[in-house]
Amino acid sequence: MRLVTISDIEAAAKRVADHAVRTPLLRQPWAEGELWLKPESLQQIGAFKIRGAYNAIASLDDVERARGVVAYSSGNHAQAVAYAANAFGIPAVIVVPDVAPRLKVEATRRWGAEVVEVPIADQAPAAAALAQERGLTLIPPFDHLDVIAGQGTAGLEIATDLPDVDTVLVPVSGGGFAAGVGTAIKALCPDAKVIGVEPELAGDTAESLRVGRRIEWPMEQRARTIADGLRAQPSDLTFAHLQKVLDDIITVTEDEIRDAVRVLAHRARLVAEPSGATATAAFLHHAGELPGGKTVSVVSGGNVDPKLLAELLA
Amino acid sequence: MRLVTISDIEAAAKRVADHAVRTPLLRQPWAEGELWLKPESLQQIGAFKIRGAYNAIASLDDVERARGVVAYSSGNHAQAVAYAANAFGIPAVIVVPDVAPRLKVEATRRWGAEVVEVPIADQAPAAAALAQERGLTLIPPFDHLDVIAGQGTAGLEIATDLPDVDTVLVPVSGGGFAAGVGTAIKALCPDAKVIGVEPELAGDTAESLRVGRRIEWPMEQRARTIADGLRAQPSDLTFAHLQKVLDDIITVTEDEIRDAVRVLAHRARLVAEPSGATATAAFLHHAGELPGGKTVSVVSGGNVDPKLLAELLA
Repeated sequence: MRLVTISDIEAAAKRVADHAVRTPLLRQPWAEGELWLKPESLQQIGAFKIRGAYNAIASLDDVERARGVVAYSSGNHAQAVAYAANAFGIPAVIVVPDVAPRLKVEATRRWGAEVVEVPIADQAPAAAALAQERGLTLIPPFDHLDVIAGQGTAGLEIATDLPDVDTVLVPVSGGGFAAGVGTAIKALCPDAKVIGVEPELAGDTAESLRVGRRIEWPMEQRARTIADGLRAQPSDLTFAHLQKVLDDIITVTEDEIRDAVRVLAHRARLVAEPSGATATAAFLHHAGELPGGKTVSVVSGGNVDPKLLAELLA
Repeated sequence: MRLVTISDIEAAAKRVADHAVRTPLLRQPWAEGELWLKPESLQQIGAFKIRGAYNAIASLDDVERARGVVAYSSGNHAQAVAYAANAFGIPAVIVVPDVAPRLKVEATRRWGAEVVEVPIADQAPAAAALAQERGLTLIPPFDHLDVIAGQGTAGLEIATDLPDVDTVLVPVSGGGFAAGVGTAIKALCPDAKVIGVEPELAGDTAESLRVGRRIEWPMEQRARTIADGLRAQPSDLTFAHLQKVLDDIITVTEDEIRDAVRVLAHRARLVAEPSGATATAAFLHHAGELPGGKTVSVVSGGNVDPKLLAELLA
């Protein structure tokens, strides 16, 4: 199986430069230990997903790209594909579950994408049908080399800004982000440890890595976590990357995630969605399980419902 | 009267480079019109003040600096001086009013500064006495060329990142930040308009600029605004800068400021203190009074009490 290389990630960095914010590393003086945050929540679409989606669409050949793209997602990947398609001036169709939050659906429409609502179980087949009928290219949320390479550009930036980093904390869901960032860090900072973080309630990858093969958890189980962006599970492709680049993976509780949202708002002045606060929850509550040293925690997204945010900060 | 020049600001930029975060310009796709935010709330001390305080201390001669510094402030300048003194390994004494929020006092102590609490009216004389007794240098919050030049580095970054900016919105209190940023913008982007923004309840500078001389408002009057970082008023030095570099100054209501705090959290994923949201309140609620075009609004700080933040987002 071909895996993403550092050259793929460097090429992706050139492609996404005008569309992904080069987020700074933010040193956190209040933290016990040396902590920097990488605030991907500050991307235009509020999450790192723009890096992978834009790189994947930019990597299509011109004829293919001109026909348009399709994606299925209720979350940040939907906005990322819609944004990138808009930047290229090509059609985009986003298949969303009919239970998707109105706010995220509106944000997707804002970029000019056509939104098709279907029952949640029909998302993948509906997208495949649209791809075939209209000649659209499917842009998957993580199971694609160009998507992984795009997400890896965040790792490239970490390695450039803090070359002597000791520990990088990344959230794990479908595994595309952890795969890309891990690949960049291992190539450029070979002594650094890359640690995946998962909600305990969606800890399928922690279990899978422990036993050395993909263990599927039913969706009902993964859906229990408040971290709605971390309910996917790896594909063969992303799992192969994770086996290679993750030094460890740890799980955090729901209360620890909620606490991290609060701490990020009060101390780091960042609004994070629960998924985006998960890596920081590990830093705050599982220091003993981490390698320590100069630590970067990625705040992967900030698209949180205003009502939930008010509850968490109350 | 000697005013700050672009060369002063360029020299300051070299001095502060390792201590002030080079904050990115964040394009806001939800905004009506072309809006970028400059999130100074992401500085280590949570506000732009580190730029001026660090530049002022770095500009002292070695002997003078080694004796230490003193400042009086209940807010972000206190933390900025404490941070910079700690970075240089020199003593710092911060005189705070005995009514100062515990949170800000603790944050100041965290940098190793000695905190002296006095009744609010005694701050300035107490600092002056300490300066004389212990041979400390007083670092004023805005009434100093090196402080103004340091704050101006934020303007230099705006001009570098968005050279065709049309409008820059800056909050006005003592006027050091608006003076520095305005000087940089006018030098590098001569066609851009620089607009000051004040709370209506502390609109002394708007009145002063209208009549062409400094009009003092009593502290009780200025203290009415929720924007606790915008209750100071210009000195002769900063007022002379403002007369030269501001194209206009507009005032916003308390409700508009509160709304801007909410919008920044929900749409831009930034925690801003009321003072830090004031420039954005003008963009959101006074578009008709602004020149428009490519607009940068500075989010000047994010040190908001958790209880107040919860109230504002409820």
